[in-house]
Amino acid sequence: MLYGNAVIVTMDEERNIYAPGALLIKEGKIADVGKDKALREMYPHETVRDMEGKILFPGLINAHTHTPMALFRGLADDLPLNTWLKEYIWPMENKMVNPEFIQWGGLLGILEMIASGTTAFNDMYFYQDVLGQAVKQSGMRAVLGQGLIDFPTPEAKNPEEGIQRLQTLLESWEDDEQVDISVCAHAPYTCSSELLKKAFRLSEKYHAPFHIHVAETRQEAELIKEKKHDESIVGYLERLGLLDSHVTAAHCVWISEPDMEILQKRKVKVAHNPTSNLKLASGTAPLHLMLKHGLTVALGTDGAASNNSLDLFREIRLAALLSKGLQEDPELIPAYQALEMATVNGARALGIDDKTGSLEIGKEGDFIVINTSDPSMQPLYRPVSHLVYTVGREHVEEVFVSGRLLYRKGEYFTLDASLILEKSHEIAQRIRKESGI
Amino acid sequence: MLYGNAVIVTMDEERNIYAPGALLIKEGKIADVGKDKALREMYPHETVRDMEGKILFPGLINAHTHTPMALFRGLADDLPLNTWLKEYIWPMENKMVNPEFIQWGGLLGILEMIASGTTAFNDMYFYQDVLGQAVKQSGMRAVLGQGLIDFPTPEAKNPEEGIQRLQTLLESWEDDEQVDISVCAHAPYTCSSELLKKAFRLSEKYHAPFHIHVAETRQEAELIKEKKHDESIVGYLERLGLLDSHVTAAHCVWISEPDMEILQKRKVKVAHNPTSNLKLASGTAPLHLMLKHGLTVALGTDGAASNNSLDLFREIRLAALLSKGLQEDPELIPAYQALEMATVNGARALGIDDKTGSLEIGKEGDFIVINTSDPSMQPLYRPVSHLVYTVGREHVEEVFVSGRLLYRKGEYFTLDASLILEKSHEIAQRIRKESGI
Repeated sequence: MLYGNAVIVTMDEERNIYAPGALLIKEGKIADVGKDKALREMYPHETVRDMEGKILFPGLINAHTHTPMALFRGLADDLPLNTWLKEYIWPMENKMVNPEFIQWGGLLGILEMIASGTTAFNDMYFYQDVLGQAVKQSGMRAVLGQGLIDFPTPEAKNPEEGIQRLQTLLESWEDDEQVDISVCAHAPYTCSSELLKKAFRLSEKYHAPFHIHVAETRQEAELIKEKKHDESIVGYLERLGLLDSHVTAAHCVWISEPDMEILQKRKVKVAHNPTSNLKLASGTAPLHLMLKHGLTVALGTDGAASNNSLDLFREIRLAALLSKGLQEDPELIPAYQALEMATVNGARALGIDDKTGSLEIGKEGDFIVINTSDPSMQPLYRPVSHLVYTVGREHVEEVFVSGRLLYRKGEYFTLDASLILEKSHEIAQRIRKESGI
Repeated sequence: MLYGNAVIVTMDEERNIYAPGALLIKEGKIADVGKDKALREMYPHETVRDMEGKILFPGLINAHTHTPMALFRGLADDLPLNTWLKEYIWPMENKMVNPEFIQWGGLLGILEMIASGTTAFNDMYFYQDVLGQAVKQSGMRAVLGQGLIDFPTPEAKNPEEGIQRLQTLLESWEDDEQVDISVCAHAPYTCSSELLKKAFRLSEKYHAPFHIHVAETRQEAELIKEKKHDESIVGYLERLGLLDSHVTAAHCVWISEPDMEILQKRKVKVAHNPTSNLKLASGTAPLHLMLKHGLTVALGTDGAASNNSLDLFREIRLAALLSKGLQEDPELIPAYQALEMATVNGARALGIDDKTGSLEIGKEGDFIVINTSDPSMQPLYRPVSHLVYTVGREHVEEVFVSGRLLYRKGEYFTLDASLILEKSHEIAQRIRKESGI
């Protein structure tokens, strides 16, 4: 199929934008992309679909989330992190999180991500074999990691059991095209150095991504500093030998410029979560400095319990806005850079940049179609500006992964939204009862 | 019509939420509101419309915008304010702004505001008689002010001509139910003290709202401080006698706590524009302190040239998030307070709180209907939380003003969206040509 007469923002290295442009999808892959006229002439026998000036853009990549927590969306807000975690989230997780919760909460989150233009996500939670099945069913891509931590979890009585389960997971999904398994250590302040090292070695052994929360809160940074004789969190991880190009460090709110130099040297990827950081009052990550130091920064929504949305377009916009206002410099985080974070950098953070993240020949046909005729999208002087400052999920019309249509204007083609809503509703009723809301 | 089986977030003083609730509209006004069962029993002969658990909420009020600038949306971004204004916006305004621009740009902005749940707005721009006709046609409410300034404008060669035109405007719209005319002095740094005082006296004479930009940028605050012997902008306006309960001060990014005390004492309303302040790198307004000092703070989008959207739900969310992260205090700007800013406080800023801003008996039937069955809105534990952190314009299904349906799921009932898009497109082509984009 040749998708013609479109505005194609490729996100390739040359920053090519074709307007009017065309995208040729063959057997799920991008067979060609370029100027509309040239491609029509080159492929006269292809079926052409006229895209009427809509924007074609790579599917977004959510680099840090806890998808099934969609079932905790709006359960508790406007509270100190400790109260939020200890009085609401952890007790509810202990009571409620089981494979059924993961299945339906995961599917609920996936419905929302698809409708907002996300085609791949990086997850950290529990029972990832169950979430993996949900991802397969949806047609999306994901990197899924079961959280290792020093305490008992809904899934494992102790870290040893967690590691055993993780190994099974790594082995059983080894050859999957859509789902990769990552190794997740929750955070430097919740995992012993032994657990961190074990986890890291496991990630090396299985060539799996390593996903970890790093320096999310001021308290965490201070705690490590105190416990580790004035070391920074990044310094501590570096000393343990846990920084490498297959590591994604989520948050990095409380890191210094010397920390950034280490992360850059080690080619660690950062997942920036601006909404969650503001909402939980963790602070504002030094995004402009991370980018100045050449770090690969991707974007995440974090879980819907602390956002309370999985719409990555909101994160793109917020990431582009925040540094400008805080540093009083309107030239920081230009629109294009914000888009890179949600696409190519996301793909790098997930270790799937050979497959997705840009519209280039040979990559998978993961793309979204953006409405440009809505009054809120007009005039359209510069598509890159609109994609950052104007587009919301209300403008996402269609979503494709490997050339397959997953979503069109409210309709899902791989998932039964009614059933997922019904099951989510049942579980939510139980959460309501348990929490006394 | 009795709108039953809804979640009704009234925004009345007792913070009443009825779930399930019902809203009775008679002759365009709210005749009753309360629990679903009680109202059905009380009004057995009313036609009932089952709202299927959707949220009914007061129409949003945009307290500061320049609507026709929708035609400059995305024309220039990521630039220092001076470059943006002097190289892009002002030259384009001088060349392009005429009654035709106002008509179609105004209608374009109105289409967007309606679809995102806004039912009233506070405008500052030119040729407001033309915009007034557009507002009448749309069925919305607005307070419209022609900007007075020391320099020539697209509408007036000098301030005297501006004042003459404004007087005509004030007199010709005096008895209108939908449109009020305000007196707008652009800003303390662009108007002489004589012009400011003349403008203020005019607002008193005509009982018109007074709308002015105050302390938007650091440079502006420093300029006034230097020129006025160390006076703050607010102190300067206070000395001139220009602060009163009918004044709306837009921005207030660079004000101190003593300034806030003055504004509070004088009952001045503040229009807070968080996106525009970040995007233009003006800074972040001290919202939590303004609220602590008891100021009535409303929310605005500013113009689409510096936002680049007129969706007030984005401002609600951002206003609720920003102070939390910046002050590292998750209890600042709780969800309900953010909603007050966009509704009751907005109505106070526009001087129309007798008519709109909450769902209370006797007020006009200005309300919006929010989808709650979309996956991104589920579960729905607490409607107030969702209205702030989750809702976007994608969830706005219907918009009513004085009980009249203006919009339903992409369809407009008072305006010809195709024609407006066509005309906007023509003007945008000319802007493109003039600006060399």
